[in-house]
Amino acid sequence: MENKIRFMRRACEIAFSRMGHTSPNPAVGAVIVKNGQIAGEGGTGPYGSDHAEVRAIKNAMSGNTGTDGAEIYVSLEPCSHYGKTPPCTEAIINSGIKKVYVPLLDPNPLVSGRGVRRLAEAGVEVEIMHQSSAMASDLLRGFKKYILRGEPYIINKCAMTLDGRIATSTGDSRWISSDYSRLFAHRLRSICDAIIVGKNTFVNDNPSLNVRFSDFNDEIKNFLKSGQTMISGRKNFLIEQLITSEHDSPKDPLRVLLGMPETVPADCNFTRDNNYIIISGRDEFENAISSSSELKKRAEGLNIVVGEFKTRAEQIVFIMDYLKGRGVINALLEGGAGVNGSFLDAGATDQFIYSIAPRILGSGLPPVNGEDKSAISESLRLNDITSVMLKEDVLICAYREQYNFEMM
Amino acid sequence: MENKIRFMRRACEIAFSRMGHTSPNPAVGAVIVKNGQIAGEGGTGPYGSDHAEVRAIKNAMSGNTGTDGAEIYVSLEPCSHYGKTPPCTEAIINSGIKKVYVPLLDPNPLVSGRGVRRLAEAGVEVEIMHQSSAMASDLLRGFKKYILRGEPYIINKCAMTLDGRIATSTGDSRWISSDYSRLFAHRLRSICDAIIVGKNTFVNDNPSLNVRFSDFNDEIKNFLKSGQTMISGRKNFLIEQLITSEHDSPKDPLRVLLGMPETVPADCNFTRDNNYIIISGRDEFENAISSSSELKKRAEGLNIVVGEFKTRAEQIVFIMDYLKGRGVINALLEGGAGVNGSFLDAGATDQFIYSIAPRILGSGLPPVNGEDKSAISESLRLNDITSVMLKEDVLICAYREQYNFEMM
Repeated sequence: MENKIRFMRRACEIAFSRMGHTSPNPAVGAVIVKNGQIAGEGGTGPYGSDHAEVRAIKNAMSGNTGTDGAEIYVSLEPCSHYGKTPPCTEAIINSGIKKVYVPLLDPNPLVSGRGVRRLAEAGVEVEIMHQSSAMASDLLRGFKKYILRGEPYIINKCAMTLDGRIATSTGDSRWISSDYSRLFAHRLRSICDAIIVGKNTFVNDNPSLNVRFSDFNDEIKNFLKSGQTMISGRKNFLIEQLITSEHDSPKDPLRVLLGMPETVPADCNFTRDNNYIIISGRDEFENAISSSSELKKRAEGLNIVVGEFKTRAEQIVFIMDYLKGRGVINALLEGGAGVNGSFLDAGATDQFIYSIAPRILGSGLPPVNGEDKSAISESLRLNDITSVMLKEDVLICAYREQYNFEMM
Repeated sequence: MENKIRFMRRACEIAFSRMGHTSPNPAVGAVIVKNGQIAGEGGTGPYGSDHAEVRAIKNAMSGNTGTDGAEIYVSLEPCSHYGKTPPCTEAIINSGIKKVYVPLLDPNPLVSGRGVRRLAEAGVEVEIMHQSSAMASDLLRGFKKYILRGEPYIINKCAMTLDGRIATSTGDSRWISSDYSRLFAHRLRSICDAIIVGKNTFVNDNPSLNVRFSDFNDEIKNFLKSGQTMISGRKNFLIEQLITSEHDSPKDPLRVLLGMPETVPADCNFTRDNNYIIISGRDEFENAISSSSELKKRAEGLNIVVGEFKTRAEQIVFIMDYLKGRGVINALLEGGAGVNGSFLDAGATDQFIYSIAPRILGSGLPPVNGEDKSAISESLRLNDITSVMLKEDVLICAYREQYNFEMM
């Protein structure tokens, strides 16, 4: 691999390792190269702290080589505006770095291109590496939607049988897919800011919705790392990273429950700490607490948001707005069929990651239950398809929108 | 590739090209090699005519080199018994061929190993090429079941959306998958002896159930041939051949309709020629003709088999027995959900070939509707999984039984 591409790839790997830790900032990675060697690295810190470029510069300054006359590879155009932190462009200019490589301009049309122009004006050479833009953009779809539309990016994940069932009619779903797929699913959780489930999932599964890498042994991890899994279709960098690497200190995403359950047991996994929210419509909430004095009492101690929505469409608008307010960029939608259907019908689902297990159930629940359609042509046509065999499961990743980052 | 493996592969390619033309005999291919060159080739003829070995010998005899001192590669152990034709072992012995390569012994335990022994006794060297047995067996699963259990081999094929729907609730299914997948499906038809559909498919789709290679243009054919489709999981030779090659003069399979429709329009595609059968239970048939005098009159001119079965399970036993009697080895089960479910519940489905299109429908019909199950552990676990991306569709092939031909 050409060195330039290798360094940019490394910057993107760092960006990936920061996903789930930086919202509402994008996860970015930076690599400083001097004399053909990596002299410093950095990824975006938690919101309010240093961005990737500044961290990489500090890292290089603490080493022997410093940054004077160095080059920097950044997985996204450096910012040029004053926010919580000073602009990265100024840090780069002040560091004596002579050349900046970026794969993409910022997706925010208000600032896109400004960072690059500021650098050029200050005499820093800039190269836009179009050959790496697909790779970098695979990590930034969420941020792009968040910035352009002011909404979280919704990834619908499920495990289903080959005949399209995510659970038996009685709600059993453990486990449809293999440990290989389940480890992948936990890694997917670790890069997301929130996980959304419906009432039935809450009632049937008592789900923890946390990141549990320790459930999986080395054989599973080594298999995924080994590259025995072959990616067909789009060589999706996000999917590749999810298969081969694992966050060092994963954060549990915000747990989001849609709907007001009839009971919320004191010992349920969902409310085990404060990192959750229950989102309910006004009527549903009033009905629930008026029919159970126990729930009414319990509700006072719970994180419940009551929204003034009536329809499923209004519900989704409310949720999206609420999650945006919490700084959620990437949200993982882990079903039930009804909740998945509501997001689909609202046009809110952006990405589908379905793991298909080699089983035929012959009955049970489908992954998505939305509005009835009379023609196949009314179905949602997906784009940029990737398929991967994780041992015996087939993972399919596809998007509502076609890749178009290179146009920005 | 080693020459031996190349010649055996060629024999298997010829075997593939004969599938659908030889039942109830297995489709076999033979290649005669002399001085390192192919001197003759042959595949099994229609039932009652020459087997592959005899055709290859005749082919070589008509050339310059003849067969004396030659070697023969056969995709299955040569037969040693007198049936419709004299045993192939004798033809080989008489031809002066000095060595026979086979990948597998015959799956019929009554004759397995006899051909090889007879050859050895007559001084012909025999080598069993275990390295090619997986490849050869991919073509012979159907014949194995037919011989061992006296039943046709059932391949359940469907095209579904990523959310597991094969049609809208109103029955629209045209087209879920792409032309690439549909050409593959027609090739699959061309190697089968029968196609089974249910009443709803008959009513909704007016299906022709024929092999229509001419529907697909060169771009589609060239893409499949190009090897741009990557096979993951089991390197299934049958799937590989279905993707890359096409029968020269495909035969339309026997059309099988399960159930008695309320009307059978005179101009429907299903009854356009004599190559069909309608299989109905006694009660269903009597009810249908007693409620329609028109159907009663029409029924006299139709190919209808009325069976004395009451339950769905009995229905499947009846159908399997009937198809066996017609010499059907490989039967393609093309759904509806109900019919697919009946075969699943009866334990009759042997292979699943599902094409998954990048679409989300959010409602509609599942591929299989069988008996309700309460636990995932009750699902049918499949084996020997292959996945292939045909452009944007993901094709998954999996089997009820694990590959075990090498044990024979």
